[in-house]
Amino acid sequence: MKKQIVLTIFLGLLCIASYAQQALGGATNIISPEVNSNQTVTFRLLAPNATEVKVSGDWMPAEGWVPGSVNMTKGEGGIWTYTTSALPSDLYMYSFLVDGFKTTDPNNVYLIRDVASVTNVFIVGDGKADLYQVNNVPHGTVARRWYDSPGNNKKRRVTIYTPPNYENSNEKYPVLYLLHGMGGDEEAWIALGRTSQIMDNLIAQGKAKPMIVVMTNGNVAQEAAPGESSLGFYKPTMQLENTMDGKMEETFSDVIKFIESNYRVKADKANRAIAGLSMGGYHSLHISRYYPNTFDYVGLFSAAIMPSQTTSPAYADFDNTLQKQKDNGYKLYWIAIGKTDFLYKTVTEYREKLDKIGMKYQYRESEGGHTWTNWRDYLSEFVPLLFK
Amino acid sequence: MKKQIVLTIFLGLLCIASYAQQALGGATNIISPEVNSNQTVTFRLLAPNATEVKVSGDWMPAEGWVPGSVNMTKGEGGIWTYTTSALPSDLYMYSFLVDGFKTTDPNNVYLIRDVASVTNVFIVGDGKADLYQVNNVPHGTVARRWYDSPGNNKKRRVTIYTPPNYENSNEKYPVLYLLHGMGGDEEAWIALGRTSQIMDNLIAQGKAKPMIVVMTNGNVAQEAAPGESSLGFYKPTMQLENTMDGKMEETFSDVIKFIESNYRVKADKANRAIAGLSMGGYHSLHISRYYPNTFDYVGLFSAAIMPSQTTSPAYADFDNTLQKQKDNGYKLYWIAIGKTDFLYKTVTEYREKLDKIGMKYQYRESEGGHTWTNWRDYLSEFVPLLFK
Repeated sequence: MKKQIVLTIFLGLLCIASYAQQALGGATNIISPEVNSNQTVTFRLLAPNATEVKVSGDWMPAEGWVPGSVNMTKGEGGIWTYTTSALPSDLYMYSFLVDGFKTTDPNNVYLIRDVASVTNVFIVGDGKADLYQVNNVPHGTVARRWYDSPGNNKKRRVTIYTPPNYENSNEKYPVLYLLHGMGGDEEAWIALGRTSQIMDNLIAQGKAKPMIVVMTNGNVAQEAAPGESSLGFYKPTMQLENTMDGKMEETFSDVIKFIESNYRVKADKANRAIAGLSMGGYHSLHISRYYPNTFDYVGLFSAAIMPSQTTSPAYADFDNTLQKQKDNGYKLYWIAIGKTDFLYKTVTEYREKLDKIGMKYQYRESEGGHTWTNWRDYLSEFVPLLFK
Repeated sequence: MKKQIVLTIFLGLLCIASYAQQALGGATNIISPEVNSNQTVTFRLLAPNATEVKVSGDWMPAEGWVPGSVNMTKGEGGIWTYTTSALPSDLYMYSFLVDGFKTTDPNNVYLIRDVASVTNVFIVGDGKADLYQVNNVPHGTVARRWYDSPGNNKKRRVTIYTPPNYENSNEKYPVLYLLHGMGGDEEAWIALGRTSQIMDNLIAQGKAKPMIVVMTNGNVAQEAAPGESSLGFYKPTMQLENTMDGKMEETFSDVIKFIESNYRVKADKANRAIAGLSMGGYHSLHISRYYPNTFDYVGLFSAAIMPSQTTSPAYADFDNTLQKQKDNGYKLYWIAIGKTDFLYKTVTEYREKLDKIGMKYQYRESEGGHTWTNWRDYLSEFVPLLFK
């Protein structure tokens, strides 16, 4: 009997600890957000002393750069609530404003960092975002590794997705190099992009070939994502140093070499793809040109394409190398952009340039702008086109 | 020229976006926390409308279950500040209280989840916490993988640290199985425990042998950590179902089998260690007894040891199997507990039981209680004792 009492006391103490934590967090038993079966979403926040509480989310129309927000209603026990109308299937981000103070949701432990801000997320399923969920399908492995980049004179961190069963086969796999945008790093595609979930699901559905996805860090002055290098816990910034000056392109062979000597890959052009968003689109454009007989598949997602004469060394010998890439041939050159993207015009100009030299591409124009919603869409559409 | 203008516009737009984000977060150019060179720490928060702002941190004396807090001072531009006295080297957690509303620090992107709460962290170095930092030393690889657990009739997720150079050698390595506490999962030791940093640093200093560390999920009813399974984004709880009823112990051979058939390991008793905190200490105690000739090293960190006669099947045949483990021999049975831990008494009773049957152990009694501060210490002390 004594022993059962001890067990009871142990669990009791844990419950008290947990209760105390929740009480301090003002969050006992509150579920927020709650994604309802009719695709509406209910938010709840305990803030008994507040006079105004709003919720601000990326499904609301923004006014210029100011995100939309809506008032929540105070109810029993100081709990504020708000329920959206039915939302299309997607991954969404939101914040609360408590008397004007922007805060995360203390009842939602799911947060993703984007550059210097950390925001709560939720997923509305029954649509395209089912690809972003962990489903009952075979799962790949996600590894954070360090590799040697002699071109940058440093060790660098990389995130690598290997497909289900990679470890238990002798098969060789194709490789997609997937590059982030400005302010991002080797964590961006795996966290904001839901890459491992998208890959697991597309492979399980037979829509994508099993492949390795290599998510590099495109800020060559960095060893690793913020908090993952010897710089410690610093405040991330839109890193600009050496990000668009050709160094990434020049040293990209280091990561290819690392992958091809450490993984069971099909090390030929037909089995290499490169794609990236925004700055990563710029990198993909130039890398595929710097190594003009290396990639059969190129994806430019909302690419930050600077026209041909900038002072960046990345543009050196642009026309000749592009011509060479064209002459060498490739299977797919895929360009995607949102209609309201601020880069729409330069992408249009780049397409005109390609038209002029007769360099073929597939063009995908979507709604919306420079957003992760679009980049997850583009990844979900691009990956099924690869290695067929 | 036109091209430079485009580049300027592009960067300009990004800056505006970034500025807008920060302005909305109320955080332009604010650095918080700032760890000063004299080991004091300065917190800053923009909250112009607030009438009272406090900071609450785990270095402050708590009153019972209520963490301590201290008032911040309002200054120029509505920025509240507070500077601590010099803090001993450690990893710390803190929150702000804005007019009583508990919130994270919008200027600190480094957060760790502990069960259902997400809390900002910072590290004060120049002491023991140098082990928790990423330093300029060779880094191991951290992989999240899925393995088959036929005993639980499911695929399960596991976090695996392989030491620097694992991939580029033919060497075989010893293995430490490292188990979390109640409410934790396969992310607990890598996130809260800073295991990969501790391992990298101890190995680089020559204090630990290169080894593989396997961080399992001890909640056998779960496939994976919250958010990492097909259950989606739910609110985590102190998971109790099947956590202390012998099922974890009974099915632990599944994970050993997986590791030993998928990694280059020395698959013998002399090269296997098992350790865990709280519930993971309970699991380590019982697993090492269930498989009484399997581990030469056992670590019980603040172990939730229920005395011998509970109704849990985990205790079946306790005395006989413990005797068998003793007779089979082992190199180290390491017990650590804090003086103020609520489990201190049951650990003392368990030591008395071991004394009675003449089962040798090393005992480490620390200051403090049932905290991650202690568990990181215990890991840092235990690992150098292994595989010597």
